[in-house]
Formats: sequence, C-alpha cells, structure tokens
Amino acid sequence: MEQLTALLARIPPPRTPALVVRRAALEANLAAMQAACDAAGVRLRAHGKMHKASAIGRMQVARGAVGLCCQTVGEAEAFAAAGIADLLVTAPVPPWGAAPLAALAAAGYRVAAVADSPAQVARLADAATALGTTLGLLVDVDLGQRRSGVPPAEAPALARLAAAAPGLRFEGLQCYLGHLQHHAQRAAAHAAAVAELARLVEALRAAGLAPATVTGGGTGTAPLDLASGVFTELQAGSYAFMDVQYAEAGAEFAPALFLATAVVSATHRTHVTVDAGLKALAADGPPPRVVAGAPEGSRFRFQGDEHGAIVHPAALPHLATAADTLALAGAVARLDCDSGFRPDPPLPPEGALVWLQPGHVDPTVNLHAALFLADEDGALARVAVDARRAA
Amino acid sequence: MEQLTALLARIPPPRTPALVVRRAALEANLAAMQAACDAAGVRLRAHGKMHKASAIGRMQVARGAVGLCCQTVGEAEAFAAAGIADLLVTAPVPPWGAAPLAALAAAGYRVAAVADSPAQVARLADAATALGTTLGLLVDVDLGQRRSGVPPAEAPALARLAAAAPGLRFEGLQCYLGHLQHHAQRAAAHAAAVAELARLVEALRAAGLAPATVTGGGTGTAPLDLASGVFTELQAGSYAFMDVQYAEAGAEFAPALFLATAVVSATHRTHVTVDAGLKALAADGPPPRVVAGAPEGSRFRFQGDEHGAIVHPAALPHLATAADTLALAGAVARLDCDSGFRPDPPLPPEGALVWLQPGHVDPTVNLHAALFLADEDGALARVAVDARRAA
Repeated sequence: MEQLTALLARIPPPRTPALVVRRAALEANLAAMQAACDAAGVRLRAHGKMHKASAIGRMQVARGAVGLCCQTVGEAEAFAAAGIADLLVTAPVPPWGAAPLAALAAAGYRVAAVADSPAQVARLADAATALGTTLGLLVDVDLGQRRSGVPPAEAPALARLAAAAPGLRFEGLQCYLGHLQHHAQRAAAHAAAVAELARLVEALRAAGLAPATVTGGGTGTAPLDLASGVFTELQAGSYAFMDVQYAEAGAEFAPALFLATAVVSATHRTHVTVDAGLKALAADGPPPRVVAGAPEGSRFRFQGDEHGAIVHPAALPHLATAADTLALAGAVARLDCDSGFRPDPPLPPEGALVWLQPGHVDPTVNLHAALFLADEDGALARVAVDARRAA
Repeated sequence: MEQLTALLARIPPPRTPALVVRRAALEANLAAMQAACDAAGVRLRAHGKMHKASAIGRMQVARGAVGLCCQTVGEAEAFAAAGIADLLVTAPVPPWGAAPLAALAAAGYRVAAVADSPAQVARLADAATALGTTLGLLVDVDLGQRRSGVPPAEAPALARLAAAAPGLRFEGLQCYLGHLQHHAQRAAAHAAAVAELARLVEALRAAGLAPATVTGGGTGTAPLDLASGVFTELQAGSYAFMDVQYAEAGAEFAPALFLATAVVSATHRTHVTVDAGLKALAADGPPPRVVAGAPEGSRFRFQGDEHGAIVHPAALPHLATAADTLALAGAVARLDCDSGFRPDPPLPPEGALVWLQPGHVDPTVNLHAALFLADEDGALARVAVDARRAA
C-alpha cells in the first residue's frame, strides 16, 4: 500500500475526476488469469463489457485470450472496428441485433451469439443467410440466475434447431452463474450447478449434438469454473481491474483501477467535498474505498451528480446511515458548532487529490470516455473507452 | 396515459435501449417554468447538467432562459462550443479548471464561476488576468446542504475579496438548497433558509457589496424559490424531462423522458428480461416505473450491467426485497414449478418493447450518447448528449 501511495503521488491526471489503471497491476492480473486458464486447459475469453476499451481487449488477446465476450451488439461492433477478430455476444440480442451481427460475420469476423428461444435462432439464421454468412450459436442455459437461458431440459431441442438451421454453426452451451459470483457459500451451489451442466453435456453428446464449447464463469467463481472439468471457456472480466465488490468476495487479483478526484470544497471539519459523484462512480455496488490522499479510515459518500464527501473517520460515528445526506447535514452542523471537534490527522486541503477504488468496476468504467494507464514512474497513457453505447 | 401509450406504440427506436423525449411534454414543461419565472420576475438559468445536450439547452435559451448552468468545466466547454453564450459553473472548480474557464471568457463567452475559499478566488483571478479577460464570480453560500459554500457569516469577506480582485466581476451569491429538493417538509426549512439569505443580502448591501444576482433553486423547490423575493435567478433542471423521484416529491411537470427497452428473454412465468440495466438507467434513485408495454403494476428490477427484469404484479408478493437477485431466483424457481401460477394478463413476449420512466433523470441521461425527440406522430429526431465527460 505504501508503494501504491507513492505511485499515486506521482500521478497528476490532466483533469479530474479521472480513472487511472496501474499498468503493473493490470499486467499481473492478465498474466495470473491466463496462467490459471492455461494450467486448466480452458480457453480464456475475457469479458469486454468490464472495460469497453478495445486497447485493453487487444492486450488480453495478445497475452493468450482467444477473443472477447461482449454484452451488447454495440460492443461487438466497436471491438471489431478495433481489430479484435473473435467475438461472442453473451446475452440474447433484441430483434434489431441479428442483422448487425451478421454484417460483422460477413465482414470476416468470427462472431457467435447465444439464444434461449426458437424465435431467436430463426432470426439469427435468417440474418446470416441473408448475407450469405455464418454465425456461431450457443444455447444459453439457466442454472439459477433467472435472467436469460433455457432450463437444461429444454436445451437439447434448441440445440437440435440450431444445428439444423442454415447460416448457423452450433458451437455448444453458455451457462453464466451470475448469481454466484459474489455469493458467500458459492462452492456448494457451484458444484450442484456444474453437475447438472455435466449431465446436459452428456445428454447432448448422446444425442449427437456434442457441444464443442461450454462457455461461462466469472471472476468470482473462476477457481471453481476452471476446476470443474465442464467449462471449456472462461468469461471472466473484472479480474483485470478489480473492485471493492470482488475484493470483498475474496477474488485474489491486484487492485488496478483507481479514481483520482480533487477536493473542491473544504469548509467543514467533518468532511471535504470532491469532484466525483454519481457521474464518475457507479452507485449500485459497495461504496468506493478511499485508498490514498486522506486519513486512514476516511469514507466516501455520494453527494450528487458530480460530488462526493470524504468523511473523516472521527466524524463517522455521528452519521446516521451511509446514504442519508440529511443525516450528514445534521452531523456537520452539530460538529462544526462543537469547538472540541478538531479531527486529527487533518483532512486534505482544497485542491488536493484523493484516490478511490471503485465499488463496482463495470458500470464505473462505463461512465468515462477514457482511462489512463499509469507506469510506475507516473507516466500516463490515455486509452479510449470506445465501446460505450453510441446510439 | 392512454394517449401516451398510443404514442409510444408508434415509436420504434432504431436500437434499444434508447431514451425518448416526448417533445410535446418537453415543450409544455419549458413553457410552464419560463412562464412561472417571468411571472415572478426571476431569470431562468436552466441547469444543463440534467440533459448535457446542447440542443435542449438551445431550446431553453430560445424560449427565454438567460443561459445555462453547468456543473463541470467540461459542460461549459461543450455548451460554449454549441453556441450557448452565457454560462455559470455552479460548483467550485478544481485547480485545473480556472484556466479553461478563462479561455472561454477570452473567447467572448459570458462565464461565471462560484467560489467558497480565498484560494479559489485567487486562482480564478489569476487565470482571467493571465488571458486579459474577466470572469464573473459568485460567492457560494451554504445554508444546510453541507456540500460546498461558506457559512453566511463568512460570505461578506469573500465577496469583498472578489470585488477587489483583478480579472473578476463580482456578481453576487449562489445558494443551492440541494438537501431540500425532495424533502417532504421542505416549506418550513426553505422559509428559514431564505430568511437567512435575505439577511445576508441586506448585510452585503449595507457593506456596499450589493449582490446583483442571487442564484439557486431547483425543480423541487421552484414554487418556494420564485415566491421568496430573494432569488433573482432560478437554476432548475429536472423540470424539463422529469423523473420518478421528482414526481414522488410532488413536482407538477409532465413526464417527458422515457426509456424504450426490448424483451430479450421470456423463459419464466414471473418476469421477462429486458436489455436495460445499470448502463442504461441510474441505480441511485427510486426504481424506474413501468409505463407501457407490460401489465399494469409490473415492476422493474436491475439484473446487471445490461439487463433488467419486468416482474409481473402477481409475482411481486413472492419477492423478498426490491434489490435481491437471489430472492428473485428463489421466487422464480418456486413459481415456475407451481403449475397453478399462470399470471394474467400475460407478460410481453420476447422482442416486444417495454417503456420505463427513469428514477433519477440526470445520471440516467449521462449514460447515453444520444436521446430521441419524439413528435406525436412517432417521428424521431436524434439529439446528441454532447456535454458528457470527454477526458
């Protein structure tokens, strides 16, 4: 942490708030996950939805990933435009999405989609045949997430449909256990799901529909996914940057992503106000962690679109809840009037930088047009977040 | 609502998810707020942070607004680039922000900033004099929000500093009562704050520092702000589009902003999955409302980055909490196995559009690169959200 603090002190981003990725930590994470996949004989297909930055995706491919996962059609288009050749869209696409995916395939990219209904299979087949091309097709299987996917019992029929459809290349199964990624007791639930998935693979094999690919998994379940013997492809994404949420879930990757934010107001004894709020940090996960630039134990609280409070640890016991701005106001009024309240060490002065680790990486990166790769000497390289929604 | 449903049925956005603004409702909101301001003799300075779309800002100026508020330096630059001539940045800017604001002033725009410390005043003065130009300066006063701003007792000293600083044009006071915008008992608290603000104005006048401008207010307190006799300028933003949060707080403007999202998976009896999640809808406010395309009483729940669930009203009593995906999974498994559960009317089929009203407008619009203005005949015009953070 001292080393990190020293590095961050060397980095003044051109503007704040700014996302900064520590390149050494990123490289260590990319190498660790690739090595774990290689050791297990599982292909790594890194999930591009996490970073939406084709430059990071190209780094993953250059280090051994077979390609990228995309969560949207737009991500697939952006990654393809940046030269990433092998793409899988990991969610059923809306009706308008079949044609653009077929267009990518017709342009020479290897593109696969997932489906959980006969109508989706038919649309993808129609779009591909209309352009004289072929789309990969994986049957999306639901083993507890209840988001998309057919129950295992319905998968063989859909696989048969896909295998017989013109314009489609039946590739196998996708099963994303999203509900287990941060689950404390995930090992037992994962074992049960994998056993069911193995039975489905066996049933397909017996029916002459052997799935060449079984794709799924994530940063939270990666050790279990790789040891399962069922998954042939891992879809992890967050491991590259990490966040508070996955750190709390025990994922053993290095924190690589930080937000630099500037103190813009320091008129209270309890907290200072920084220029990072709901439009710089996603609010759905755990709160961002204060990692440098403020007294140890300081906490971040949202204060609107473009502002947050860095609350001094000595003031925390006076706050009612983590989310209640009115409680913050009350505590501040009380403590500012109490002449005995002089927190030590002091909060950073106006103009200083405070460094945060985001709570939930994917929607946080999505709030930024760019991020900065930082070398250990503090040199910054701008990387565009070029796969954000453009429509 | 029937009229709205009929309109929405005529609109197929080119891709989903897509933000659609009903032009008639927007125009009615713009006209109503402008008329209220005109009647009160208060200037309207619409807050551009809400829409971050210069085309909407130009509509507001064309209908009588004196200019726009910005929450960031980047917004000021983007709005200026689009030809909006009069801009106020409503939060103290970080150290790097003084120079770009001075550059805008040097380029001929009327630009004002706020400050709550002598250091900020000095930085803005230095930046302006360095370019041989002048920046407007308002003293930021805190009357309970505890975000930025000096206590009233410290305002005169800062006003004197600003009035004497080369390169600065002392314009008056800013006081944003952000903590009262959605507060149920806001009338009494507002009256107390306004009384204190009036005393400060009087003190400044007596000291020869009469504030030409007292700017502040918002959609939630607008009737109180306009009736106060103290504010000369209203900073409201959300009134133009509206959202669930302000509707719940009693703001009387028409819902103008909707999100069109497509059903991408329909494999359960309890809910369907749509292609709008944390990257299309802000998660910090109340949940989005389902306004069309699904049975009355259906509820939206986040299901990750790019997905949400539209839960059938008959399934709602079985869900443990509004936010717990695991509880959703459990309820789904239970109800899908219970052959007696056949909700009526049915949920929309895969491929159908569902229309939502966002919970919190500002951070939701910020997730999109564009929004679509819809005429009553369903014709769509694309408007860029061109003031999003670019760095």
